[in-house]
Amino acid sequence: MFNQIVKAVPNLFTIGNLLCGVLSITCNMSGFVEASAIFIFLSAFLDLFDGRVARKLKVNSEFGVVLDSLADIVSFGVAPALLFHSLAVPSILTSLAFILFPMMGAIRLAKFSVKPTVGYFKGLPIPAAGLPLAGMGFFLYSNAWITLILALLMVSPIKFKKL
Amino acid sequence: MFNQIVKAVPNLFTIGNLLCGVLSITCNMSGFVEASAIFIFLSAFLDLFDGRVARKLKVNSEFGVVLDSLADIVSFGVAPALLFHSLAVPSILTSLAFILFPMMGAIRLAKFSVKPTVGYFKGLPIPAAGLPLAGMGFFLYSNAWITLILALLMVSPIKFKKL
Repeated sequence: MFNQIVKAVPNLFTIGNLLCGVLSITCNMSGFVEASAIFIFLSAFLDLFDGRVARKLKVNSEFGVVLDSLADIVSFGVAPALLFHSLAVPSILTSLAFILFPMMGAIRLAKFSVKPTVGYFKGLPIPAAGLPLAGMGFFLYSNAWITLILALLMVSPIKFKKL
Repeated sequence: MFNQIVKAVPNLFTIGNLLCGVLSITCNMSGFVEASAIFIFLSAFLDLFDGRVARKLKVNSEFGVVLDSLADIVSFGVAPALLFHSLAVPSILTSLAFILFPMMGAIRLAKFSVKPTVGYFKGLPIPAAGLPLAGMGFFLYSNAWITLILALLMVSPIKFKKL
């Protein structure tokens, strides 16, 4: 019983990450753009802990890894793209950046899930792509070129050092 | 080269599923509720094909399976929950159903990914939970109890026959 509870602890952080992603979208829909950005930051804060807590408690699980990807696509793929979309001036470039961002994010997550890298990341990790969009969104700023570049960096072969 | 293209075909369906999920949310944000529901149906249509096409072309891949889960959480977890949220009268029950639906969807997807079942599903599959919400949403109807029950059915131990 106690073991079961300990095992669930890191997943609570992951579920919190997902919840913040969903709440970010809800705030955005209601016009609370700054709150939408803050919820993405909260997601990132919770995302920092799930893996660390799991390793600390020695309860790493495949279930936890999959759940983490599912939370990440919502919190750092879809929510930041929608935040960008709410703020950007409509154009073909805006639509392209908006569509490509979550798609490249999903491809990045699926690639890493199949072939995890140790010590470095191949392609920009999705939280590192979503957070700049959240930061810009907090200041009611959007930039389609930056969004597009972040999207493409996620599926690029460039190596990024793990922090 | 030809092999690479054939290998990518099922993933194009999955990417299409994800795109329809994101577009469903965008339509919902712009107040086009019926269009939002239609995009969820389109996601389901594309979702029907990815696995079948992969098996037909004999190009099943782990990458495709992970990508499918990532598309499903957006198209059948987050998008239908947001559609319900847009139509429902605010209440504690509404909030509870809205929060639990994508969470239980993610848990269902992660569970199946770790322990796939053959010939049957343990717990209602996420498309089968998201589609009734889309159907109700198309007729501008929402019901928090139905949403809550669908959410809980996803993580229930009830066996559902594979169609």
